[in-house]
Amino acid sequence: MTAASQLRDAGPFGDITKLPMLRFLNECQRKYADDHSGHVADYIPELFKANPNHFGIALATIDGHVHEVGDTSIPFTIQSVSKAFVFALALEFVGAEEVSATVGVEPSGEAFNSIRLGNDNRPFNPMVNAGAIATSGLIHRHDPEAAFERVREFLGQCAGRDLDIDMKVYESERDTGHRNRAIAWLLRNNEKLSSDVDAALDVYFRQCSLLVTARDLAVMGATLACNGINPVTGKVVMQPGTVAKTLSVMVSAGMYDFAGEWIFRVGMPAKSGVGGGIVASLPAQFGLGTFSPPLDAQGNSVRGLRACEWISEHFALHMMQRYGDLSSNVVANYQLAHIASRRSRHPSERALLDKHASSARILELAGALNFGSLDYVSRAIAQDQALEMLILDFSRVTAISSGAMTLLKSLVTIVKEAGGRVIISGIKPQSLIEQAFETNFAVEGDKPIYFSNLDDAMIWAEDQIIFRRGGFEHISEGVDLEEQELLLNLKPETLDEIRTFIREETFRTGAKIIEAGSTADSIFFVQKGMVSIKLASGTRLSTLGPGTCFGELALLPGGATRSADVIADTPVTCLTLSLTDYEAVCRKDAAVRAIIMGNLSALVAERLKQANAKIATLTSPNG
Amino acid sequence: MTAASQLRDAGPFGDITKLPMLRFLNECQRKYADDHSGHVADYIPELFKANPNHFGIALATIDGHVHEVGDTSIPFTIQSVSKAFVFALALEFVGAEEVSATVGVEPSGEAFNSIRLGNDNRPFNPMVNAGAIATSGLIHRHDPEAAFERVREFLGQCAGRDLDIDMKVYESERDTGHRNRAIAWLLRNNEKLSSDVDAALDVYFRQCSLLVTARDLAVMGATLACNGINPVTGKVVMQPGTVAKTLSVMVSAGMYDFAGEWIFRVGMPAKSGVGGGIVASLPAQFGLGTFSPPLDAQGNSVRGLRACEWISEHFALHMMQRYGDLSSNVVANYQLAHIASRRSRHPSERALLDKHASSARILELAGALNFGSLDYVSRAIAQDQALEMLILDFSRVTAISSGAMTLLKSLVTIVKEAGGRVIISGIKPQSLIEQAFETNFAVEGDKPIYFSNLDDAMIWAEDQIIFRRGGFEHISEGVDLEEQELLLNLKPETLDEIRTFIREETFRTGAKIIEAGSTADSIFFVQKGMVSIKLASGTRLSTLGPGTCFGELALLPGGATRSADVIADTPVTCLTLSLTDYEAVCRKDAAVRAIIMGNLSALVAERLKQANAKIATLTSPNG
Repeated sequence: MTAASQLRDAGPFGDITKLPMLRFLNECQRKYADDHSGHVADYIPELFKANPNHFGIALATIDGHVHEVGDTSIPFTIQSVSKAFVFALALEFVGAEEVSATVGVEPSGEAFNSIRLGNDNRPFNPMVNAGAIATSGLIHRHDPEAAFERVREFLGQCAGRDLDIDMKVYESERDTGHRNRAIAWLLRNNEKLSSDVDAALDVYFRQCSLLVTARDLAVMGATLACNGINPVTGKVVMQPGTVAKTLSVMVSAGMYDFAGEWIFRVGMPAKSGVGGGIVASLPAQFGLGTFSPPLDAQGNSVRGLRACEWISEHFALHMMQRYGDLSSNVVANYQLAHIASRRSRHPSERALLDKHASSARILELAGALNFGSLDYVSRAIAQDQALEMLILDFSRVTAISSGAMTLLKSLVTIVKEAGGRVIISGIKPQSLIEQAFETNFAVEGDKPIYFSNLDDAMIWAEDQIIFRRGGFEHISEGVDLEEQELLLNLKPETLDEIRTFIREETFRTGAKIIEAGSTADSIFFVQKGMVSIKLASGTRLSTLGPGTCFGELALLPGGATRSADVIADTPVTCLTLSLTDYEAVCRKDAAVRAIIMGNLSALVAERLKQANAKIATLTSPNG
Repeated sequence: MTAASQLRDAGPFGDITKLPMLRFLNECQRKYADDHSGHVADYIPELFKANPNHFGIALATIDGHVHEVGDTSIPFTIQSVSKAFVFALALEFVGAEEVSATVGVEPSGEAFNSIRLGNDNRPFNPMVNAGAIATSGLIHRHDPEAAFERVREFLGQCAGRDLDIDMKVYESERDTGHRNRAIAWLLRNNEKLSSDVDAALDVYFRQCSLLVTARDLAVMGATLACNGINPVTGKVVMQPGTVAKTLSVMVSAGMYDFAGEWIFRVGMPAKSGVGGGIVASLPAQFGLGTFSPPLDAQGNSVRGLRACEWISEHFALHMMQRYGDLSSNVVANYQLAHIASRRSRHPSERALLDKHASSARILELAGALNFGSLDYVSRAIAQDQALEMLILDFSRVTAISSGAMTLLKSLVTIVKEAGGRVIISGIKPQSLIEQAFETNFAVEGDKPIYFSNLDDAMIWAEDQIIFRRGGFEHISEGVDLEEQELLLNLKPETLDEIRTFIREETFRTGAKIIEAGSTADSIFFVQKGMVSIKLASGTRLSTLGPGTCFGELALLPGGATRSADVIADTPVTCLTLSLTDYEAVCRKDAAVRAIIMGNLSALVAERLKQANAKIATLTSPNG
């Protein structure tokens, strides 16, 4: 293990052995390291040179972390492990139909190198030599020039690095693989191998001689566990349907001829190779790669097999024993009436929202959305009888299955048919989720309304509600000082006095009205237009319209410096009061300061109430 | 469908057909209703009486909702569907070892009623008649008196209601089931049936004659999809290991003799019966039940099979094609230094916390925790080099797998070995999660520290940090007015004046100092002891210690009525100032009100800052 990976894996107290998973894998490695049973493959001299003491275990998680113990960086030839991945490539490259016509998917009940074919003259499955040679033949038929390079590239994408070939092993297999040559000619005879037999076989011999490490196998397994996305590189290597088919064949014919027993007892799709490697994959959990050259009578790595079995048993890891939960996909579920956007609004706007905002519902979604999650989402809005707008926030969604997308599409149609709208917020640009939306909502009229973040979507929904009810009309001409919340309850003569100090300032769209870090020397009352308060990072804290103020924190201790930028979102007119003038007014009548401070307390207390409501929603067990 | 279930299923606009799932199931039902191929089972007259037009589909989700279309409440005999569930019962009741000795788990490649046994004289698997009879025989061997009642009760628990038996079908099967009788005697001959052959067969005939509906089958399938918990009743029916084994056998031998093809193409464990029923189960997603009497040549319901296949295809539902995500199990991840508990603290305590609270980390967990989730959690704390306390909040955790528990146990040990502590909060009393903790942390010394809610755990952790550094010593004698935040910056003579109005009040533990709804007529400064601010519901909003005040919202507009209860957590001494006296002081010097209002704004602004930090953590994509 490299120093870098030690550092990366450092446990809570800086000690690598102290991550629970590594502690277990170390224990597992020690437990079986002393087991010297089995024999290194000797049918070609090159394989027999392997060190029988080598033993490595790697576990790659679906978020791309790789735990490694022992000899996980020793290269060895992939051999039969390649069969599963070349089968996947064939499904991707030549399509499921042609693959099905050529190779079956039933366990054979015979040895891996049997020359027998099924009753329909197809090889039983792609995990026996006959099926694997036929599969490689399919690749070769469709790309005679670059078939092997295609295989090498695809397996490399699964492993997350370029793979080399062991030329000595390749040459030896090529020169001595007479039985495989016999199988290939039998396939040719039955028209299950239609291309040049020697050239197709050459692809097969080369693919078996690709060099991998236990770590590579773990990442390859994790790529299958992640629906075809390599979790280390983040790249899409194959389609989810291909993954399901490949894992199915690994389950029914991957490790043993006893398909039922393997799924019953271990419950993890796996494939072994005579080079000493085993790959296993637990969907949506991890990929596992082991390397240890001594093989049992069936040709499986002894230590690797025991490690797989113990890991499965120790952690009760069976693909059918999966804990699921729907409610945690909905982090928060509320109506606009209960939690508002971060736009500060004029009291008349707020009154309208209080009355009508129950016509908009927001669901903040999270995690990987499967079929059941979208059904749960649609049931969550079932009680809304007069839903005008449904906002679904995807900021924390990490994946969406095609079944979930199918249900979502139907939901969007249903809401639209009833005269409502679906608004989608928070989809990351260039993400797979964005891609899924583009594919599924390709027709212009079907599209939901997109916003880059939830707050924008909420502001838009609020604006719709206010606008439809004529709520913007009376403030479109601008709001004067007496409607400002910070100045409520002041005597008319005080307001008149403040007016003598006020400067009217206009800003064009995009102007930076306040810069973070500058000295706070005035308070701004918005008369017309809209402004946003933003952190230097670009994160928007809130937006303000007529009747609200900003810069007011200057009135508090510690408010001498501006803490955020304020930007004009539209042409803005502000009524500006300098702190010097404010002090002058207060000095004349101390009651003025007391009233304004009281108003400020009330303003901040109202924001606190909103914030606490949001926290309560986000932390409630039912979203 | 009943009126009640229509109401329960009402869509976004009150129309039942408008839930996406129901719309699809209705479409599916209509699509195949006109398919009249297949023949109603006629080997006994009773079965042939079934109405060939009956067709119902039910889908039960893992949160216990049942979608139903068509004839989902028509009772029919369960027949071979019972085999899967009686196999599960045998695993639970007589144990996996004895079951394995009696029945194999391999697909047979022969018809369901074959009289052939495997080479080891075991029936091939429990889904063929021979295996099912042997399985029922096992139940009978261990409970000769009540074997059938045990079966009926177990299947009823899976369905969520008591199941009746169709006596006519039972009697007919008993009197004409000669082939099954032959199979039973062959099993007896091979010592795979050791009890009274007729009595064991009687259990088998009765179990096949139990009456179920499509809805029942959906719930039974969902019980398997939920690791053995019936999602409608919430009751634990079987252990997760039993579920994995049962579903494995359904995959490899449930529907067809072509095990590889079924898993490859449909990828859903399923079992059919000649009564016209099919049950299917997708782990962690749903259970599906269909009913339609006409059967194909293999004895599977024609319409049911097509419905299963179309649902699987339409939504890409393959058990190996599962989208997972680890990050959404960690809703929030922060140090005490960044987000504090809801205890208001004296500035000197807060200074200590600011300095040292990085030694405590909080992870708020959510959803179903699988193996990978706990590895993710342990990696999330890997950067902490000096972790004294790790708080894991389980309030929103809905399930924990045994593999996740195994890793958690190891993590607790590792943190403890390094001198740290693990604190667990939010486990619901009498929940399965509580049970899992009790089982796994049975030894006194191994136990983590439990708190019923996260805030209590955070307060305890903060107290530890302050206490270890002597931070409570100087405030244990009580805090006087000049240290009160609300009164900062007042002139000494003003404080003296306030002191003349102050009443010192003491309260015993548990006393209600303020009652929600009462008139707000005073402000309380805590001098000694602790109080909690609570809603009438019992939810605690915050706790306060010496140097902080409560009732201060009375100073704001709208504060005339108390909004929450305040309870003494310990013996408490307060310095109480009535609003009348406060007004008197302010009237004398208006600057006093301005200063106090400024302090109040600052206090509330600080709370708002904390609340916004919490929201930012809860809504950040990485928890």
